[in-house]
Amino acid sequence: MADETKPTNPTGEPGAEQGEGSISKKAAKKAEAKAKKEALKAQRAAERIAVAGGGSSAEPAEDPSKDSYGRANAIFPPGLSTDVEVVHLRDLGEAHVDKTVIVRAWLQNRRMQGAKMAFVELREEGNWSIQGVVIANVPGGEAKEGDRPAAPVISRPMVKWVGAINPESFVAVEALVKKPLEPVKSCTVKGFELHINKCYVLAPAPAALGMTLAAANRPITNFSDEEPKPAEESEKAAAAAPESKGPEAAIPAASMLTHLDNIVMHKRAPIQQAIADIRVEVKHLFRSYLRDRGFKEFEPPCLIGAASEGGANVFRLPYFGQEAFLAQSPQFYKQFEIAGGRKRVFSIGPVFRAENSNTPRHMTEFTGLDMEMEIQKDYKEVLHMLEGVLLHIFRGIKEHCAAEVALIRSVYPSEELLLPEPGKEVRLTFAEAQKLLREEGPPEFRDVKDDEDMSTPQEKAVGALVREKFKTDFYVIDKFPDAARPFYAKVDPDSKPGGPQVTNAFDFFLRGQEILSGGQRINDPDELEARIRAKGIDPSSAGIKEYVDVFRQAGVPPHGGGGIGLDRIIAWYLALPSVHLAAYYPRTPKRLLP
Amino acid sequence: MADETKPTNPTGEPGAEQGEGSISKKAAKKAEAKAKKEALKAQRAAERIAVAGGGSSAEPAEDPSKDSYGRANAIFPPGLSTDVEVVHLRDLGEAHVDKTVIVRAWLQNRRMQGAKMAFVELREEGNWSIQGVVIANVPGGEAKEGDRPAAPVISRPMVKWVGAINPESFVAVEALVKKPLEPVKSCTVKGFELHINKCYVLAPAPAALGMTLAAANRPITNFSDEEPKPAEESEKAAAAAPESKGPEAAIPAASMLTHLDNIVMHKRAPIQQAIADIRVEVKHLFRSYLRDRGFKEFEPPCLIGAASEGGANVFRLPYFGQEAFLAQSPQFYKQFEIAGGRKRVFSIGPVFRAENSNTPRHMTEFTGLDMEMEIQKDYKEVLHMLEGVLLHIFRGIKEHCAAEVALIRSVYPSEELLLPEPGKEVRLTFAEAQKLLREEGPPEFRDVKDDEDMSTPQEKAVGALVREKFKTDFYVIDKFPDAARPFYAKVDPDSKPGGPQVTNAFDFFLRGQEILSGGQRINDPDELEARIRAKGIDPSSAGIKEYVDVFRQAGVPPHGGGGIGLDRIIAWYLALPSVHLAAYYPRTPKRLLP
Repeated sequence: MADETKPTNPTGEPGAEQGEGSISKKAAKKAEAKAKKEALKAQRAAERIAVAGGGSSAEPAEDPSKDSYGRANAIFPPGLSTDVEVVHLRDLGEAHVDKTVIVRAWLQNRRMQGAKMAFVELREEGNWSIQGVVIANVPGGEAKEGDRPAAPVISRPMVKWVGAINPESFVAVEALVKKPLEPVKSCTVKGFELHINKCYVLAPAPAALGMTLAAANRPITNFSDEEPKPAEESEKAAAAAPESKGPEAAIPAASMLTHLDNIVMHKRAPIQQAIADIRVEVKHLFRSYLRDRGFKEFEPPCLIGAASEGGANVFRLPYFGQEAFLAQSPQFYKQFEIAGGRKRVFSIGPVFRAENSNTPRHMTEFTGLDMEMEIQKDYKEVLHMLEGVLLHIFRGIKEHCAAEVALIRSVYPSEELLLPEPGKEVRLTFAEAQKLLREEGPPEFRDVKDDEDMSTPQEKAVGALVREKFKTDFYVIDKFPDAARPFYAKVDPDSKPGGPQVTNAFDFFLRGQEILSGGQRINDPDELEARIRAKGIDPSSAGIKEYVDVFRQAGVPPHGGGGIGLDRIIAWYLALPSVHLAAYYPRTPKRLLP
Repeated sequence: MADETKPTNPTGEPGAEQGEGSISKKAAKKAEAKAKKEALKAQRAAERIAVAGGGSSAEPAEDPSKDSYGRANAIFPPGLSTDVEVVHLRDLGEAHVDKTVIVRAWLQNRRMQGAKMAFVELREEGNWSIQGVVIANVPGGEAKEGDRPAAPVISRPMVKWVGAINPESFVAVEALVKKPLEPVKSCTVKGFELHINKCYVLAPAPAALGMTLAAANRPITNFSDEEPKPAEESEKAAAAAPESKGPEAAIPAASMLTHLDNIVMHKRAPIQQAIADIRVEVKHLFRSYLRDRGFKEFEPPCLIGAASEGGANVFRLPYFGQEAFLAQSPQFYKQFEIAGGRKRVFSIGPVFRAENSNTPRHMTEFTGLDMEMEIQKDYKEVLHMLEGVLLHIFRGIKEHCAAEVALIRSVYPSEELLLPEPGKEVRLTFAEAQKLLREEGPPEFRDVKDDEDMSTPQEKAVGALVREKFKTDFYVIDKFPDAARPFYAKVDPDSKPGGPQVTNAFDFFLRGQEILSGGQRINDPDELEARIRAKGIDPSSAGIKEYVDVFRQAGVPPHGGGGIGLDRIIAWYLALPSVHLAAYYPRTPKRLLP
C-alpha cells in the first residue's frame, strides 16, 4: 500500500516558498505591460472564485478534502479514480473538454492567487506544459450540492498545499479539462486548462533546486573543464537562487560544470530535450536511409587487441594479463565486414580518443556513424551515398524538427543552414579548394600548396568562400593529397606520375568545419603493404599485420566508406557553442560524471 | 588506370589447382546416383560445346580473347562494357533472360569439363549463388560469323584460366543470362545461369585458403579458448585441405579458434551470414517496436567514473591521472534519462564484464538491449511491454527470417521454439515456480525455498516443467525474493510483514535460460538509501552517492525497465552451441582478435 503522509507543506521541509518565476520569454521592456496584466489576472481570479462558489475565510475544523491531496510514495495513489483516463498532454484534445482526466507530470511552477486559488504549470516529456488551477469551494460547496452534485470538495488548506509544492516535484492530478478564457501564453498547451480537484506529490523535489529550470534553459557560455575559482562560485549560487518575477533576461546562466552537477535539471530543460530529440531523429534518419538502400547494421568491438590506428591517443587497459585498447574508430572492422561477405554495412556506436584536449570541440568518447560499401564502377558511388545520407539528415531535421530547431535557436541563435539545390551539390577537388583560397581567400593563404593538408583556419576560409560563391554551408572536398590521408586511402590510379599524388578520399564540411572523412580503401594486400611502408609504419607491427592479413585471406572487393561524428553534426548544424551540448553525457579528460 | 597483368594462372601463383568440392547437401548414400549424373553432365557438356561451335584442340598462336579475361586491380576493368547493367543476384529475373549483364561476386567453385568448358559458381552477399559456364568458341567462331555476329570470342586458354581461378577470389563477369536445361540444384539461383564471355579477377584469393567455405559452414563443436595441442593441429590442416568430391559429411569441422583466425571465411559462410541477418533483424524489431510506442533511443556512456554496480568484474583503465571504468550496464543512465524528463527510453550498445569465464555462455563485451519507462498505474506495464517486444522479436524472426532459420537449423539442428498463444502468456511468481519445482520437479529440488535465488539447474528444470505443462519455451518469473535482486529493485509494497520480502522484479526465460532481468526501480531517495544500507553497501561510496543524489535533485517518477543480452537471445532462440556464434567479433578473456 502507498506510504502516505500529510505534511504541513508538500515535502515536509521547512521554507518551501522558493518561487520558480515565469518561464515565458518576455523581454525587459515588457515588464510594465506585464504588471497591468497581473492586475487583470487578479480580477479574473476573483471572478473564478465567485463561480466556484467557495472559500470564505473561515476554515473548517477538519479538512474535508484531506484525501484529495498529499504526498504519496506510490505509483497510483488510492485517492485517484481508477476509471479515469490517464492522458498525456500531447494527446489532449477537444474530446477531453468537460471530462475528468488524470495527468502525471512535473509541477514546473505555481503561485497562490489570494488564499482561495492557486495556479500551477505542469510539464510532461520534452516541453509539453499546461496550466492548472485549484480553487477552494468549501464552505459553500455543501450548500450548493443540488446544483453541482459531482463537484469534489476542495478546501483552502488543499489550495495552500498545492500552491506550495516544490517546483520539479512529480505529481499526479485528477482534473476537469476546461477551455481557458483566453489562450495560455506561458504553456505549450494553450487551448486547455486543468481544473484540479485531486493532487498528489509522488516524488518531491527539494525546496532549493541545484539549478532551476529557467536557469537550465539559459545559454551556456562557460564550457571550462576547470572547477570554478572562488570568485566564480557566485554563479553557482545564482543558478539556484530564487528568481525574481522580472523578465527572463535577469536569470543568470550557469556553467557547463553546474549543468553536469545538476544533470536532472540540465536534461529537463526544454533546450536539452529539443537537442536530444534532434539527436534521436538524426540517428533514425541515418539508419533508415541506409537500411532502405540495403545497408546492414553491425556492431564493431570496443575492446581491441592492438592499437591499430597508430597508437597515439588510444586508451589502454589491463586485460587478463594482456593489454587491451579501446577502439578509436570502427574502420578496420567495417572493412572486415566487406571482406566477410557483406555488401554494405553501417554502424552507430561509441569510439574513444585518449586526447588531452580540453576544448568545446573534443570529447574522449563520442558516437560514430560509420558506413562502408562495395564499389561497383566508381568510388564516387561512396561520395554520393554519403552526400545523400547527410542531405537526407539535414532536410529531415528541417522537416521533422522545426519546433525543436526554433526552440534551440531561441536560446542559441543561429542562421538557417544553406543547403545546395538537388543536383547542384558543391564538390571541389582539394586542388580547386586551394586555388580558390590562393586567388580569393585572405592574404595569408596566398601560398597554400596542393600537396599539403589544410589547417582549421584554411578550412573555415574555404567555408566562407563557398558560402559566398555557391550559397551553401554544406560541400565536399575530394582528392586529398596522399600526405594528408591514412595508409588505407586509395591513391587515385589516374594520379600523374611526377605530379602530386592524390587519393580517392574526401572530407565533407558544414559551416566550414569538417564533419566527415571518407573515400576508397585499398583492397589489394600488396598495394596496402607498400603504402603502409611508404607511410613509415612497420607492416608486421601488432594490429597492422592482422589487418593486412585479412586482405590475404580471400579476395576482397573494391570498397569505400566514411565516418561521421554524431555529436559534431548536431552541434554544428545547430551552431551550438560546444559539442558537449549535443552529447547525453559528455566525456572530457577532466570529467567522467555523471 | 587498371594495373592489369595476364598471368599463366589467375593469381600468378603456382599450383592453384586446389578444388573446393561440391557444397550441395548430399548424403553419402547418394554418391552412386551422383556418379551417374556426372556422366550425364559430361554428355550435356559435350552438346553445349557443339552448340557453341567451338574449340578444336588446336589453339591459335595468339590468344584472340586475351582482353576478355585476366587479373585487374581496378574497380571496373576497361574490358567490361560500360553500357551493360550490373545486376545483383537477388534481383535477377525473367527480364534479364537473353540479355548481357555484369555480375560482381565471389567465385566459390569451379571445375573444368574437358578442355573446352568450365563451370563456375558465383556467390554474392549472404547466400546468393548462381551457376556460370564459359565455353570456348574458337576456332570456328570466325567461320560462323554470319550466324552469330555478336558472339564474343572465347578461347581455350580463357576457359582454362577461368577454370583455375582460386575459390573465393572476387571477380567481375560479363555474361548472357540463360535458362538452364534444368534447375541448378547446387545454387540458390536455380532458374538462371550465366554464359560468361568476359571474366576478370579483381581480387585474388590465395591458392590455399586458411579455411574453405564448406569447412566454414560446418557446425563448430570445439569452442575452447585454448590454442590447440599438437594432436589437434591436424584439425587445422584438415580445415584448409583440398576436399574430396565425396559427400559433405566428410568435410571436417573447424574449431572456433580456427574460425576466428580465418575471420573472412568464417563470416562468408552462409551459416554466419544467416546468423548476422537475424541479428540485424532482432535489433530492428526491438527498435521499431519501442519506437512505435514512444520510446526514444539514447546512448549511455561506456567510460564511467566509478565502478557503480559493486566493483566486481569491472574493467579499469588509467584516465588522465584518474581511474576510469567500463560500464557493466546502462542501468543508472537509463534511470537518469527518466529522471531527466524522458518518459520512455531505450538503448542498444556495448556493455563490459571483466569476468574470467571461459565458457560458451560468456563474453567480456556484448550488446545490451535496454529500456526504461515511466509507470502509470502498475509495474506490470513494464513486464507487459518487455513481453510484448520479445514476442514481437520471436514472431518477427519466424516471419521475416524463415530461410535464414532453416539454413541455420540445417547446420545446427534445433526444435521449433514454442511460443504462447496471444493472451496465454505464462507468468509465474517466483513462489509458484519454486512450488512447481518442489512438487513436480526432479527429487533434488524437493526442498527449494521461496526466499533463495534459483540455480541454473533449477532454472532449466523449471523450463522443462513449463514446456510440458504450458507448451511454451518463453515465460516470465515475477516477484523475485529481495535477496536475489540488486539494491535498486522495488520491494513489493504488498509484501506481508514477517513473510518473505518479494520485489516487483522479474526474469524472462527462453528454453530454461534467463534472457532478461527487469522490474520496478526505487524512485524515492530515502527508500533507496535505506535499501543500499540493508544490502551492506555504503551509500556514500563512489558511484553510489552520485546515483542516489540524482533522485534528490528533483522528483523522479515511478519507473521500471529491463535489459536483454542481444547475443544470448539470438543464440538461445536458435539453440546455437555458443553465444560466440551470435556475436560479430566475440571477446573472451583469452581473445581480442580480430
